[in-house]
Amino acid sequence: MAAEWRPVRQSRTHELVLERIEEQVVAGELKAGDRLPPERELAPVLGVSRSALREALRVLETIGVLVAHAGRGPDAGARIVRNPDDALGRLLRLHVALGSYNLHDVLEARVVLERSSFEAAATHASAEDLAEAEETLRRMQEPDVTVPEFNDLDTSFHVQIARSSGNQLTSTLTSAVRESVRPLILQALEAAEDWPATAAALNAEHTALLTLVREGDGPAAADLAEQHIRGFHGTLVPDTPPSPADENPSPAGAPSSPAGD
Amino acid sequence: MAAEWRPVRQSRTHELVLERIEEQVVAGELKAGDRLPPERELAPVLGVSRSALREALRVLETIGVLVAHAGRGPDAGARIVRNPDDALGRLLRLHVALGSYNLHDVLEARVVLERSSFEAAATHASAEDLAEAEETLRRMQEPDVTVPEFNDLDTSFHVQIARSSGNQLTSTLTSAVRESVRPLILQALEAAEDWPATAAALNAEHTALLTLVREGDGPAAADLAEQHIRGFHGTLVPDTPPSPADENPSPAGAPSSPAGD
Repeated sequence: MAAEWRPVRQSRTHELVLERIEEQVVAGELKAGDRLPPERELAPVLGVSRSALREALRVLETIGVLVAHAGRGPDAGARIVRNPDDALGRLLRLHVALGSYNLHDVLEARVVLERSSFEAAATHASAEDLAEAEETLRRMQEPDVTVPEFNDLDTSFHVQIARSSGNQLTSTLTSAVRESVRPLILQALEAAEDWPATAAALNAEHTALLTLVREGDGPAAADLAEQHIRGFHGTLVPDTPPSPADENPSPAGAPSSPAGD
Repeated sequence: MAAEWRPVRQSRTHELVLERIEEQVVAGELKAGDRLPPERELAPVLGVSRSALREALRVLETIGVLVAHAGRGPDAGARIVRNPDDALGRLLRLHVALGSYNLHDVLEARVVLERSSFEAAATHASAEDLAEAEETLRRMQEPDVTVPEFNDLDTSFHVQIARSSGNQLTSTLTSAVRESVRPLILQALEAAEDWPATAAALNAEHTALLTLVREGDGPAAADLAEQHIRGFHGTLVPDTPPSPADENPSPAGAPSSPAGD
């Protein structure tokens, strides 16, 4: 039948290259720090065009597995690295923006991950971690801080706590999920009716959170973190959780009742 | 100084294209279902070569944001989609294999995510979800099931529970983290000294877990899930958690004392 004759999908070749390299990584044959052969050598070995190879290498760069041409000529082999955070952040940010996940689900995921981060931070945070987080909160309290700066610092505080939990994976996931709602939270902050009051309330909650972490009271820090996240992020979410199908609320829509986070 | 003259990084162009498209997605101007203009039109609009554009499009395909050429000629515009699961799974699988995350961190992340999945599944799982999970467990108990089949079914069971939690994001994260340790768990299962006893113990735990989910006892299901994960996955992890820096245990190394999960 004619319907069975379709153009060969050009994407196939780079996908095969990707799978080949992935197999070697999972088998432990390619390790962090290893260099791939230069493109002009690797392409004929794999039996693919240099452009198909390059497409696969770009994908691996973007997911934080490869650095190309680092400090060398354009034909130097790319190096295997371990840098997942930016990739995971981009992936979740794009998918939250597209509505792949609705805001209710993102809220519940934040609660689960940040409860765990705050609880672990109360045990594991170093004096340096605490000083860094305190400095972030101090800057949020400066009178001339703009709303976008406040939002960036707010994100930083949550990411710093996650990093000080001692668990790289939950830290990455927490940061990526928090980053994914940064544009939405900025909209909500900008829509706040009484910005000074909103900022003051958020600053008081952050200060109380950091105090509990410093005192090593993990369970109380986890409970307050949940209350803090539900208090602000919760206002972005309609009361009735939407069905998980395609009825996600538009992430570009303005939230109805902004407060703070 | 001569050292300041280095080749222009070819990766820059595709990265700029990526950022441009990402901006439009985050601003809500590109939505799921939208089509990008064909490459031959979009490349001159962006002022980049078609190969740089194609590299960016490949990256977006791989992170589940774009489907190229779906059922059309090679110049049809790619379509924006929301298909993050495979991308997240690949990302975490590669990074666990590279040791970006050590096994102790992955274990703790699984405990946090799967506690939440089992607890929510006890409330949200439909009769269909329960029947599907029961069928998976039934197949794991067949006498001629091979170790790789058992491992695939084991992964499926945990993924099915995550999906039935009603939260797409924690479901995606749970699945990706469970998938990321699939090769390691396979090694551990294959190294089991008494495979029938190991399989029987795991089957009994899975059955008890599903019973608690069916009875709607979320807290008990969460506790048993934690015990189940620590019982098997825990044997992959050295007693002393390694420092989060570069001392990750080799993920390709055989675990010392395998049991079941």
